[in-house]
This record gives sequence, C-alpha cells and structure tokens, in this order.
Amino acid sequence: MATSNLTASDLQEILKFITALARTAGKLILEGSQAIQSASDSGVNEKKNSVDLVTEYDVRVEELVKKEIKEKYPDFEFIGEESYAAGSRPPLTDEPTFCVDPIDGTTNFIHGFPFVCISLGLIYKRRPVLGVIYNPFLDHLYTGIKGQGSHLTRGSAAPLKLPLSSSPKPLPSLSQALLAVEWGSDRCERTITSKSSAFGRLAGNPAQGVTGGKMAHSLRSVGSAALNFALVAQGGLDLYWEIGCWPWDVCAGIVIAEEAGSLVTGSHTDFAASASSGTFGDVTEEILTGRKYVVVRAIGPNHGETASDAQKRIIKEFYDSVEDVPTN
Amino acid sequence: MATSNLTASDLQEILKFITALARTAGKLILEGSQAIQSASDSGVNEKKNSVDLVTEYDVRVEELVKKEIKEKYPDFEFIGEESYAAGSRPPLTDEPTFCVDPIDGTTNFIHGFPFVCISLGLIYKRRPVLGVIYNPFLDHLYTGIKGQGSHLTRGSAAPLKLPLSSSPKPLPSLSQALLAVEWGSDRCERTITSKSSAFGRLAGNPAQGVTGGKMAHSLRSVGSAALNFALVAQGGLDLYWEIGCWPWDVCAGIVIAEEAGSLVTGSHTDFAASASSGTFGDVTEEILTGRKYVVVRAIGPNHGETASDAQKRIIKEFYDSVEDVPTN
Repeated sequence: MATSNLTASDLQEILKFITALARTAGKLILEGSQAIQSASDSGVNEKKNSVDLVTEYDVRVEELVKKEIKEKYPDFEFIGEESYAAGSRPPLTDEPTFCVDPIDGTTNFIHGFPFVCISLGLIYKRRPVLGVIYNPFLDHLYTGIKGQGSHLTRGSAAPLKLPLSSSPKPLPSLSQALLAVEWGSDRCERTITSKSSAFGRLAGNPAQGVTGGKMAHSLRSVGSAALNFALVAQGGLDLYWEIGCWPWDVCAGIVIAEEAGSLVTGSHTDFAASASSGTFGDVTEEILTGRKYVVVRAIGPNHGETASDAQKRIIKEFYDSVEDVPTN
Repeated sequence: MATSNLTASDLQEILKFITALARTAGKLILEGSQAIQSASDSGVNEKKNSVDLVTEYDVRVEELVKKEIKEKYPDFEFIGEESYAAGSRPPLTDEPTFCVDPIDGTTNFIHGFPFVCISLGLIYKRRPVLGVIYNPFLDHLYTGIKGQGSHLTRGSAAPLKLPLSSSPKPLPSLSQALLAVEWGSDRCERTITSKSSAFGRLAGNPAQGVTGGKMAHSLRSVGSAALNFALVAQGGLDLYWEIGCWPWDVCAGIVIAEEAGSLVTGSHTDFAASASSGTFGDVTEEILTGRKYVVVRAIGPNHGETASDAQKRIIKEFYDSVEDVPTN
C-alpha cells in the first residue's frame, strides 16, 4: 500500500484489520479485568496520584496492538498512551499515524465498572480519518471512516448506521440537553472549584435561585472519553465536554462522531476562532492535540436553522456557561 | 399461595414469574425508545419541570405490569410510580407488596442513553425480600431473593453470582473509591450548591488546596437509581448516595445489593441511629420510605476489621463529607 495516498478502499482494508485487532485486544482487557478483580490490591501501581492509575494490562494491550500494527503497516507512525512521554504534544507528520489508547477508562477498568474500551484511531495528513472503539464488557463496537459513515455493532447483531435516529431531533437549548462531563485526573483547587461550580450552573434552575442556571435535563459521567464521543455519535448524549485528555483518547471518537453528523471543536479559543474564520468543524492539528474538546450530536434542521448553526449555537451557550481552565 | 407466610420456595416461584414479566416489559421499553427516537419532540410531556419527564410508555409499562401481577397475585398489594400520588410516603402493611418502577432512568430513556431499566421489588412484613432489575438496552438482568443470594445474567450467558469478585477487596478509604452520585431532579439553589460543593470535595485533592478533599478515584453519574444499586452489588461501584428518589426506585436494588454483601442504610440521621443502636444494616420501613439512601459494596475483611465495620467506616467518612439536604 502506498502511504503517499490512502484511498477509500485502503481505509476499508485498514478498518477490517483494526476491527479484528480491537476484538483480540478486548479479550486481553477482559482477562486483565478478571485478574485485577480476583487479585489483591498489590497489582495496582500509582503513577501521578491515586486517580491516575495504570495497570500492567495497559502496557500489555498497547504492546500487542503496536506489534500487530507494525507487522502489518511497518511504514505507519504510531502514537500510543503508554509509549508516549507525557507532558508535551505528540509530533504529527503528514504520514499515516495510528493513535491508540490501549485501555480508555482505566479507573473503570480497575474497579470493574463496565465503561472501558480500546480506542484505535488513524491520522492522515494531520486529520483523523479512521476510528475503532471497542468496549469488550458490553460487546459494543463503534467504527468510522472519514467520508464513509460510522456504525455501531452490538454483539452479533448487524451494524447500525450512526446516529441511531434517522432524523435527529432539534435541540432548542441546553435546557433540553443530556450533557456528559467528567471530573478528570486534575484535582487541584482551581480546576475542582471551576468544574463543580460549572456543573452546578449547568444543572441548576435559574427560577429557583441558581444564578446562570441552565437547567439541563441532566449531567452524566461515565469515565471514558472515547465512549463519551461514541455515545454522542449514537445520539444518546447531546454534548460532551472534556479538558485534559489526549489525542489517543479522542482520535477514533472524532471520526466516529463526525461521520454521525456530530460537530467537534476544541477549547473556548479554538471555537471562537473557527466560528469567526469559517473553519468551524475542521478538527485541525491544533485542536486534535490541544487537550480540550467539545462534541455535540447531529441536530435536525429546525425553523430554517441549519444543523451546523444549531451546533454552533449550542456550543456557544455551553462555553458561555463554563470557564476554560489550564491543563496540567 | 397463602399470603400469611411466604416461604423460600414461594419466593422462588415469584422470582420466576417476575423475571419473565421484566423481560416482557423490557420489549415494550425498547419499543417505546424507538418510538421516541423517531418521533418529534411532541411526544414528551413535562410533569414538574423539564428534568422530571414522564412519557406515555412509563404509564403503559406500569399498566402492563400491574395487570399481569394482579391476575397472578390478586391478594398482593401494589405500589407503582405512576399509580401513586406523589408527595407523601407510601403506606406499608405487613402484606406482600409489589413495589415497581416501570422505567427507571426516564431521562436516559428519552435521550436514548442506554442506562434504563424496569425495577420490580417485593416487600413483605415491611422489608424488601425480592428484586428484579432488567436493562433491556444492555440485556442485563439482576435478580435477588432475601437469604438466597443475587445474580447477574448478561444476554444468554449463565447467571453469575454477585458480587462478581469471589473475594471482595478491602476499601481503606474514600481515596480508593469509585463513587456514584446523581444531580437528581431537585435543582433549587440550596440543593445544587450543596451537591456541587460536596462532589467537588469528594473529587478534590487536599494536598492541592481543596479543603476537606477526599481525592476519590472518581465520581460516576449514570442516571438510574436501580442500576446504581445493581452496579454496587456487582462490585463495579464502591458506594452510591442518593437523596430524593422513592421506594420503587430502590426496593429491588436493596435486596440485590444486600444479597451481594452490600450494606444499605438511609439518611445521616438513620445511619447515626442504627450505628449506635446496633441495628446497622436493617433496612426498616422508615429507611425504605425515607427517600435518602446510601449503599456500599461488599468489603473483604482486612487487618481484623470485619466487613460490617469497614462498611460503617466508609459510610461515616462519606457522610462526614457531604451535607444532608431536605427532599422536595
């Protein structure tokens, strides 16, 4: 395969390979979960703090995936959570680059909370172009190829095109929305104060004394960035906001969400710049590696408003309600 | 069947019937979800506010369940969310009483977020004695009978005894815990301020400036009381705290959790009273109908501390960290 020009059929072939690899990795993740649940606490290492846990299976799954990919696509670049030195942005080139989180939702993995997945993305010419997310605990497989749609396969059922609703509903305001937010691993006073007050405003009723209250239908926190993107793609969540995760957490999810009609952008600044420059919806290298993301589901056109304008309106309402905070 | 004295085998027979009924109701819930996802917004009614949604399927599922139960067990009492006038505590008698939430996780149901279930509990002599929780979206079935254990059946696999780990881990403190909390439907200033600051303390790092910070592994919010109980029972969550839900939300979950070695109690006051009087772990009528609940998973004995003492210690640490708030 010439890496200089990946065609639509090249991407289909890659998807087939990566899907099988995700299922194989899923078996190892399940094995790891059982080992952890039946072991004493001694199997758990602490990296940065007790929230930021990494287990040996994180490394083993990444090694498995990296080895298989290197054999099949020796010329492709590889960025993985475990093999990447944290603290700086990954260097991107124009070459095809796999971007992999071996186990997304590590805290869930350790506790046996069934929102855990492997996330396998492919970046090409500095844009996410292919994604596979597999949750072995629920046997839910999400796939997407840029320009070719995205799908959810549950168990042995036939793949379903995303979003699951063939005619996505309008979304008049955040007061009609089910929002995904996460507490994350940065637990310093500034971040926690900012997040807890923002979450309170999103949930609070302005008619019952909550200043700036948005009275969202509710807030959800499942603890996996990749699965939050997947749930927005399928239409089960209206919006997901994240600060502090990494390209490998979101790369696959970005493709799956975009192909389901969702809109992805970055930080407050990224959003404002793209909205004013007319590049709204283009997940640039800066956004992909910027560690701040917001994704909103496909929205049906309503009263002459386009889907894109509705998505822009919802993100603006959301970003006007929450403060940007620095990543650590 | 004499209702004056329900035997172990009577309860097994009831469980068989209720399990089949839950699966039938699950089909109607799935049908409802598809109808809602493909309909316009007009199918959704508003009860108290935009958070507190009820759909026609809530009523239809309850009518189905009530009819089937009345035919099979005409002498049993029935308490259901939809047929019960909200605002006061349900009257309990010593008679066998079904306590049913036709659709738990109504907000999720409307949005297509796959944490939705039917919750069917049986109260006898004022104590929960049998529970069935079925999530048709994930095909997860939880069952329990007082004194006879509880189980999880995923799809067509064999039932697994709960908790899933045969030797539950110790739980030294909240700093090792995955906690379930919910934003709920009461969004007034007092409740929201209390909750958002409590959640911030639970997540926050005391070494990074968060006063009273507990640095929990993380917080999860999935939006179904019954499934939170089930997830604690299986061991995937360490603790779940709730204020404002009703007996039908938790009745089935209480049995399933208790039979998995979890400990259930009520409000701050209930907990303090039971801990000092030696009735800790007895879910009295007052606790069952008190609308404030905390449940902590089975904890393995450690350094001579009994499981019950460990559960008491964790609940005390938790209740020392969060404020009691009135229900509306």
